[in-house]
Amino acid sequence: MTKRVYNFSAGPAVLPLPVLEQAQAELTALPGVGMSVLEISHRSKTYTEINHAANQALRDLLSVPDSHKILFLQGGARLQFSMVPMNLLRGSEQPADYVLSGTWGKKAIEEAGREGKVNVVWDGKPTNYDRVPADDDLKFNASAPYVHITSNETIQGVQFPTEPDTAGVPLVCDASSDFLCRPTAIEKYGILYACAQKNAGPAGISVVIVRDDLLARGGDDLPGYLNYRNHAENDSCYNTPCCFGVYLVGLVAKWLTDEIGGLAQMEQINRRKSQMLYEAIDASDGFYIGHAHCDSRSLMNVPFRLATDELNSLFLREAEAHGLCTLKGHRSVGGMRASIYNAMPEEGVAALRDFMRDFQTKNG
Amino acid sequence: MTKRVYNFSAGPAVLPLPVLEQAQAELTALPGVGMSVLEISHRSKTYTEINHAANQALRDLLSVPDSHKILFLQGGARLQFSMVPMNLLRGSEQPADYVLSGTWGKKAIEEAGREGKVNVVWDGKPTNYDRVPADDDLKFNASAPYVHITSNETIQGVQFPTEPDTAGVPLVCDASSDFLCRPTAIEKYGILYACAQKNAGPAGISVVIVRDDLLARGGDDLPGYLNYRNHAENDSCYNTPCCFGVYLVGLVAKWLTDEIGGLAQMEQINRRKSQMLYEAIDASDGFYIGHAHCDSRSLMNVPFRLATDELNSLFLREAEAHGLCTLKGHRSVGGMRASIYNAMPEEGVAALRDFMRDFQTKNG
Repeated sequence: MTKRVYNFSAGPAVLPLPVLEQAQAELTALPGVGMSVLEISHRSKTYTEINHAANQALRDLLSVPDSHKILFLQGGARLQFSMVPMNLLRGSEQPADYVLSGTWGKKAIEEAGREGKVNVVWDGKPTNYDRVPADDDLKFNASAPYVHITSNETIQGVQFPTEPDTAGVPLVCDASSDFLCRPTAIEKYGILYACAQKNAGPAGISVVIVRDDLLARGGDDLPGYLNYRNHAENDSCYNTPCCFGVYLVGLVAKWLTDEIGGLAQMEQINRRKSQMLYEAIDASDGFYIGHAHCDSRSLMNVPFRLATDELNSLFLREAEAHGLCTLKGHRSVGGMRASIYNAMPEEGVAALRDFMRDFQTKNG
Repeated sequence: MTKRVYNFSAGPAVLPLPVLEQAQAELTALPGVGMSVLEISHRSKTYTEINHAANQALRDLLSVPDSHKILFLQGGARLQFSMVPMNLLRGSEQPADYVLSGTWGKKAIEEAGREGKVNVVWDGKPTNYDRVPADDDLKFNASAPYVHITSNETIQGVQFPTEPDTAGVPLVCDASSDFLCRPTAIEKYGILYACAQKNAGPAGISVVIVRDDLLARGGDDLPGYLNYRNHAENDSCYNTPCCFGVYLVGLVAKWLTDEIGGLAQMEQINRRKSQMLYEAIDASDGFYIGHAHCDSRSLMNVPFRLATDELNSLFLREAEAHGLCTLKGHRSVGGMRASIYNAMPEEGVAALRDFMRDFQTKNG
């Protein structure tokens, strides 16, 4: 096998090696089927089982209540930015409430604005999106069709510690970059959506969890693919799904269940991993500068920078030489970003932490 | 390796074994990269190369002129049924002209009707969609925003032998099930789109070839993902693409170029393969009943049936026992359907032809 590096990419991102190995073993022919999962009809018995198994594994992992459907869709979170307001906002007199805590929230608002009225309830811009709002900062409109949050901002590395209380207004959440990182009370959500390519699978597949009563809101004039109801009524086989993506999401869910032991265990591991890096930043006496405010720090994405662009470049170059890859931060925040999703092993984070200490010793 | 069967699925469908084997070998780590193609950032140098290589390979294979862009999108042909009219029909006083030659054309018309006015120029219903129209049957409106055809109807097995003359009106074509089956004069098309899961790759990725002047037609009020311009201006990386799908499309295009020798050679092989089955049908003295009228017969999908439901069931059961799989026809046509896409080897078709003869000898 070709040597693997530690991949800190923000997404598409590292996948669990046992998942890749099983997919590899089965890639030319599923056992007993004689065809690759890339070649089987989405109407076949085999794919129906794969689809149901992936759905059930997620349902069990997240304790999704019977009131919610789990859908597998294409087009990424980007298409959800539009599908949410197409289904829930079109024709509404009342604006939707959006909480703006970073780059992805901003894009969600832009798309919602094409479908209806939007009220930005809170905007983190004054402090360059270094924190999420406290409950006291948020006043929602009781008549809003929904409230939208981004549970974790991948670029800024800020994460809601828990759901805001929307007092009965449906909560819609872009959970793309922290889906499955910890137990989540799905019953609190109207819609929770996530592109898979951070914690759940490959790019090209999104998981959308929708409360049943919201499925009725999409108008019959919506394009067929963009109406949640069509997908819910057809077990995500309204049209040909991204079968390989669903298969991999199923394998990842199985890995989380069987190898990790569930989401409570995953959260413990994620807390240990992120703490390693935050402690390294905090212990550096200002050599490493974290972006996120302490009480909003993400378990998944840790952006930090050094005092100068030269030092940032040197860090990235030397880290790469040590097999610590894809650490460059987004230009809007600068410096580095360590994305430490579920599949990043603790050894990888420890290796980065050790490298950070050594780098400081040499350059501090 | 697990034994592979002959898979006559209409889609997702058989892929070239060398493509599957290369993807398998590289699945845990791309050579020299240390990460799987499922894990690399879509902004990375590696993915940029994969994306450009797939694009260029298709451009070379199909001799796509400089006037056209090749896009890799998600959502299947189903989303294209909506994206085409969203970009080209919205706000038009004139209806779009649609040619209705089978099941998929009908679905395309339904979606177009949600975005604007549609004129059905020709409808094959009177003969249960057993043929495509002759040129004389078609009178297009010179002011129509576009003419839409389905070059090959997967379910009915009818295929246009060549493009109808639209006298300058942009021709839009759903080529999902015959894309890359033969050389195609792309310069004749305004838009040619195809989901990949028949001839070009796995489910979850679509190839959309758009003439540059049509990119300007989409309104700024369109949802971001649904505006062709956004994808064209960002080399299909407007948002995270289905990276693995693009990678496989690139490998399939390379296989067609290097192993097959190009689309003219592919067409020769496809003619030999389809002829084997049509000759078996024609030589059966009415034991096998083909669906398509002779001059509209598809190179890709060969629907046929026997005199009774009992014989159809027996045929399917015994074929399966001979490793000839997924031959059940669509309920709207009944009987059997042999989908013999590019990746179905001639030996597979010959095995089916031989089985058909034996079955007739025993049951005729």
